[in-house]
Amino acid sequence: MLNRDFNEVTPQRVAEGITIRWVIGQPEGAPTFAMRVIEFGPGAIFAEHQHPYEHEIFVLEGEGVVRVSDDEGPMIPGRVIYVPPGISHSYRNTGQGVLRFICVIPYAESSA
Amino acid sequence: MLNRDFNEVTPQRVAEGITIRWVIGQPEGAPTFAMRVIEFGPGAIFAEHQHPYEHEIFVLEGEGVVRVSDDEGPMIPGRVIYVPPGISHSYRNTGQGVLRFICVIPYAESSA
Repeated sequence: MLNRDFNEVTPQRVAEGITIRWVIGQPEGAPTFAMRVIEFGPGAIFAEHQHPYEHEIFVLEGEGVVRVSDDEGPMIPGRVIYVPPGISHSYRNTGQGVLRFICVIPYAESSA
Repeated sequence: MLNRDFNEVTPQRVAEGITIRWVIGQPEGAPTFAMRVIEFGPGAIFAEHQHPYEHEIFVLEGEGVVRVSDDEGPMIPGRVIYVPPGISHSYRNTGQGVLRFICVIPYAESSA
Protein backbone atom coordinates (compact mmCIF):
# COMPACT_ATOMS: atom_id res chain seq x y z
CA MET A 1 0.00 0.00 0.00
CA LEU A 2 1.18 3.50 -0.72
CA ASN A 3 0.79 5.25 2.63
CA ARG A 4 3.42 7.83 3.47
CA ASP A 5 3.86 11.27 4.93
CA PHE A 6 3.95 13.89 2.21
CA ASN A 7 7.29 15.07 3.62
CA GLU A 8 8.83 11.76 2.56
CA VAL A 9 8.48 12.88 -1.06
CA THR A 10 11.40 14.97 -2.31
CA PRO A 11 10.28 18.48 -3.23
CA GLN A 12 11.14 19.82 -6.66
CA ARG A 13 11.82 23.49 -7.25
CA VAL A 14 9.22 25.16 -9.48
CA ALA A 15 10.29 28.78 -9.25
CA GLU A 16 11.87 31.14 -6.72
CA GLY A 17 10.56 30.11 -3.29
CA ILE A 18 8.13 27.53 -4.70
CA THR A 19 8.35 23.73 -4.50
CA ILE A 20 6.13 20.86 -5.56
CA ARG A 21 5.87 17.30 -4.26
CA TRP A 22 4.18 14.80 -6.58
CA VAL A 23 2.73 12.70 -3.78
CA ILE A 24 0.49 10.39 -5.86
CA GLY A 25 0.75 9.96 -9.62
CA GLN A 26 1.63 7.63 -12.44
CA PRO A 27 4.80 6.29 -10.76
CA GLU A 28 2.54 5.11 -7.94
CA GLY A 29 0.14 3.54 -10.46
CA ALA A 30 -2.51 6.25 -10.40
CA PRO A 31 -4.13 6.25 -13.85
CA THR A 32 -6.36 9.32 -13.94
CA PHE A 33 -5.10 12.24 -11.90
CA ALA A 34 -2.14 13.33 -9.81
CA MET A 35 -2.04 14.80 -6.32
CA ARG A 36 0.69 17.33 -5.58
CA VAL A 37 1.57 19.30 -2.45
CA ILE A 38 2.80 22.78 -3.32
CA GLU A 39 4.62 25.16 -0.99
CA PHE A 40 5.26 28.88 -1.35
CA GLY A 41 7.81 30.52 0.90
CA PRO A 42 7.05 33.99 2.30
CA GLY A 43 6.65 36.49 -0.52
CA ALA A 44 6.67 33.88 -3.27
CA ILE A 45 4.56 34.60 -6.32
CA PHE A 46 3.60 32.35 -9.21
CA ALA A 47 2.73 34.73 -12.00
CA GLU A 48 -0.35 34.58 -14.18
CA HIS A 49 -0.44 31.57 -16.48
CA GLN A 50 -2.90 29.18 -18.02
CA HIS A 51 -3.05 25.63 -19.37
CA PRO A 52 -5.72 23.36 -20.84
CA TYR A 53 -6.39 21.39 -17.65
CA GLU A 54 -8.15 22.15 -14.38
CA HIS A 55 -6.89 22.45 -10.80
CA GLU A 56 -8.68 21.27 -7.69
CA ILE A 57 -7.06 22.89 -4.68
CA PHE A 58 -7.34 22.47 -0.91
CA VAL A 59 -5.38 24.90 1.25
CA LEU A 60 -3.56 23.25 4.17
CA GLU A 61 -1.56 26.03 5.80
CA GLY A 62 -0.64 29.68 5.53
CA GLU A 63 -2.16 32.74 3.97
CA GLY A 64 -2.21 33.77 0.34
CA VAL A 65 -4.24 35.09 -2.52
CA VAL A 66 -5.35 33.29 -5.67
CA ARG A 67 -6.40 35.20 -8.75
CA VAL A 68 -8.53 33.45 -11.37
CA SER A 69 -9.25 35.57 -14.43
CA ASP A 70 -10.19 38.94 -12.87
CA ASP A 71 -11.34 37.54 -9.55
CA GLU A 72 -9.23 37.37 -6.39
CA GLY A 73 -9.87 35.31 -3.29
CA PRO A 74 -8.18 34.11 -0.11
CA MET A 75 -6.01 31.05 0.28
CA ILE A 76 -6.37 30.06 3.93
CA PRO A 77 -6.65 26.63 5.56
CA GLY A 78 -9.82 24.77 4.66
CA ARG A 79 -10.46 26.68 1.44
CA VAL A 80 -11.32 24.67 -1.65
CA ILE A 81 -10.61 26.38 -4.95
CA TYR A 82 -11.46 25.29 -8.48
CA VAL A 83 -9.49 26.67 -11.42
CA PRO A 84 -11.19 25.70 -14.70
CA PRO A 85 -9.22 24.60 -17.77
CA GLY A 86 -7.86 27.42 -19.91
CA ILE A 87 -8.39 30.24 -17.40
CA SER A 88 -5.55 32.57 -16.36
CA HIS A 89 -4.58 32.24 -12.72
CA SER A 90 -1.84 33.21 -10.29
CA TYR A 91 -0.96 32.65 -6.64
CA ARG A 92 0.95 34.62 -4.06
CA ASN A 93 1.92 34.02 -0.47
CA THR A 94 0.86 37.04 1.58
CA GLY A 95 1.63 35.56 5.01
CA GLN A 96 4.67 35.31 7.27
CA GLY A 97 5.10 31.56 6.92
CA VAL A 98 4.77 28.88 4.30
CA LEU A 99 1.65 28.69 2.11
CA ARG A 100 0.94 25.00 1.54
CA PHE A 101 -1.84 23.55 -0.57
CA ILE A 102 -2.91 20.40 -2.33
CA CYS A 103 -3.37 20.74 -6.09
CA VAL A 104 -4.86 17.88 -8.09
CA ILE A 105 -4.66 17.75 -11.89
CA PRO A 106 -5.81 15.27 -14.53
CA TYR A 107 -3.02 12.93 -15.50
CA ALA A 108 -3.14 13.15 -19.26
CA GLU A 109 -2.03 16.75 -18.98
CA SER A 110 0.13 16.54 -15.91
CA SER A 111 3.48 16.35 -17.62
CA ALA A 112 2.84 19.67 -19.35
CA MET B 1 -14.39 31.68 -9.00
CA LEU B 2 -15.21 28.75 -6.78
CA ASN B 3 -13.35 29.55 -3.57
CA ARG B 4 -15.07 28.52 -0.37
CA ASP B 5 -14.44 26.91 2.99
CA PHE B 6 -15.17 23.20 2.88
CA ASN B 7 -17.54 23.70 5.82
CA GLU B 8 -19.83 25.74 3.58
CA VAL B 9 -20.69 22.52 1.73
CA THR B 10 -23.53 20.56 3.32
CA PRO B 11 -22.33 17.16 4.56
CA GLN B 12 -24.22 14.08 3.43
CA ARG B 13 -24.54 11.04 5.65
CA VAL B 14 -22.73 7.98 4.25
CA ALA B 15 -23.10 5.55 7.16
CA GLU B 16 -23.28 5.62 10.95
CA GLY B 17 -20.96 8.42 12.09
CA ILE B 18 -19.62 9.11 8.59
CA THR B 19 -20.29 12.12 6.37
CA ILE B 20 -19.07 13.29 2.98
CA ARG B 21 -18.86 16.74 1.46
CA TRP B 22 -18.52 16.92 -2.32
CA VAL B 23 -16.45 20.09 -2.35
CA ILE B 24 -15.50 20.16 -6.07
CA GLY B 25 -17.22 18.10 -8.75
CA GLN B 26 -19.41 18.18 -11.81
CA PRO B 27 -21.89 20.72 -10.36
CA GLU B 28 -18.93 23.10 -10.07
CA GLY B 29 -17.89 22.32 -13.65
CA ALA B 30 -15.03 19.93 -12.87
CA PRO B 31 -14.85 17.48 -15.78
CA THR B 32 -12.39 14.80 -14.70
CA PHE B 33 -12.36 14.09 -10.99
CA ALA B 34 -14.15 15.03 -7.79
CA MET B 35 -12.73 16.19 -4.48
CA ARG B 36 -14.59 15.15 -1.35
CA VAL B 37 -13.95 15.81 2.36
CA ILE B 38 -14.90 12.81 4.46
CA GLU B 39 -15.36 12.77 8.24
CA PHE B 40 -15.56 9.84 10.61
CA GLY B 41 -16.82 10.42 14.14
CA PRO B 42 -15.10 8.60 17.01
CA GLY B 43 -15.43 4.85 16.60
CA ALA B 44 -16.84 5.05 13.08
CA ILE B 45 -15.94 2.24 10.70
CA PHE B 46 -16.46 1.93 6.98
CA ALA B 47 -16.34 -1.79 6.31
CA GLU B 48 -14.35 -3.51 3.61
CA HIS B 49 -15.57 -2.74 0.10
CA GLN B 50 -14.23 -2.27 -3.40
CA HIS B 51 -15.10 -0.49 -6.63
CA PRO B 52 -13.52 -0.11 -10.07
CA TYR B 53 -12.00 3.33 -9.44
CA GLU B 54 -9.08 4.61 -7.43
CA HIS B 55 -8.85 6.85 -4.37
CA GLU B 56 -6.22 9.49 -3.70
CA ILE B 57 -6.35 10.46 -0.05
CA PHE B 58 -4.75 13.16 2.10
CA VAL B 59 -5.39 13.00 5.84
CA LEU B 60 -6.21 16.36 7.42
CA GLU B 61 -7.04 15.59 11.04
CA GLY B 62 -7.48 12.79 13.53
CA GLU B 63 -6.21 9.28 13.91
CA GLY B 64 -7.37 6.18 12.11
CA VAL B 65 -6.39 3.05 10.29
CA VAL B 66 -6.79 2.22 6.62
CA ARG B 67 -6.72 -1.34 5.39
CA VAL B 68 -5.99 -2.02 1.71
CA SER B 69 -6.17 -5.68 0.76
CA ASP B 70 -4.24 -7.35 3.63
CA ASP B 71 -2.14 -4.33 4.51
CA GLU B 72 -2.92 -1.86 7.30
CA GLY B 73 -1.46 1.57 7.84
CA PRO B 74 -2.00 4.77 9.81
CA MET B 75 -4.30 7.64 8.92
CA ILE B 76 -2.76 10.66 10.59
CA PRO B 77 -2.37 14.26 9.37
CA GLY B 78 -0.06 14.63 6.39
CA ARG B 79 -0.41 11.03 5.22
CA VAL B 80 -1.05 10.43 1.54
CA ILE B 81 -2.69 7.13 0.68
CA TYR B 82 -3.38 5.56 -2.69
CA VAL B 83 -6.09 2.91 -3.03
CA PRO B 84 -5.90 1.30 -6.50
CA PRO B 85 -9.01 0.43 -8.51
CA GLY B 86 -10.65 -2.88 -7.65
CA ILE B 87 -8.82 -3.45 -4.35
CA SER B 88 -10.69 -4.12 -1.09
CA HIS B 89 -10.27 -1.40 1.50
CA SER B 90 -11.74 -0.19 4.77
CA TYR B 91 -11.27 2.69 7.19
CA ARG B 92 -11.77 3.16 10.90
CA ASN B 93 -11.43 6.05 13.28
CA THR B 94 -9.26 4.93 16.20
CA GLY B 95 -8.91 8.36 17.82
CA GLN B 96 -10.91 10.42 20.30
CA GLY B 97 -11.94 13.10 17.82
CA VAL B 98 -12.99 13.39 14.21
CA LEU B 99 -10.99 11.70 11.48
CA ARG B 100 -11.07 14.00 8.45
CA PHE B 101 -9.52 13.34 5.07
CA ILE B 102 -9.64 14.43 1.47
CA CYS B 103 -10.57 11.68 -0.99
CA VAL B 104 -10.37 12.33 -4.74
CA ILE B 105 -11.98 10.01 -7.29
CA PRO B 106 -12.27 10.02 -11.08
CA TYR B 107 -15.51 11.56 -12.19
CA ALA B 108 -16.77 8.96 -14.63
CA GLU B 109 -17.18 6.62 -11.69
CA SER B 110 -18.08 9.06 -8.99
CA SER B 111 -21.80 8.55 -8.99
CA ALA B 112 -21.34 4.83 -8.25
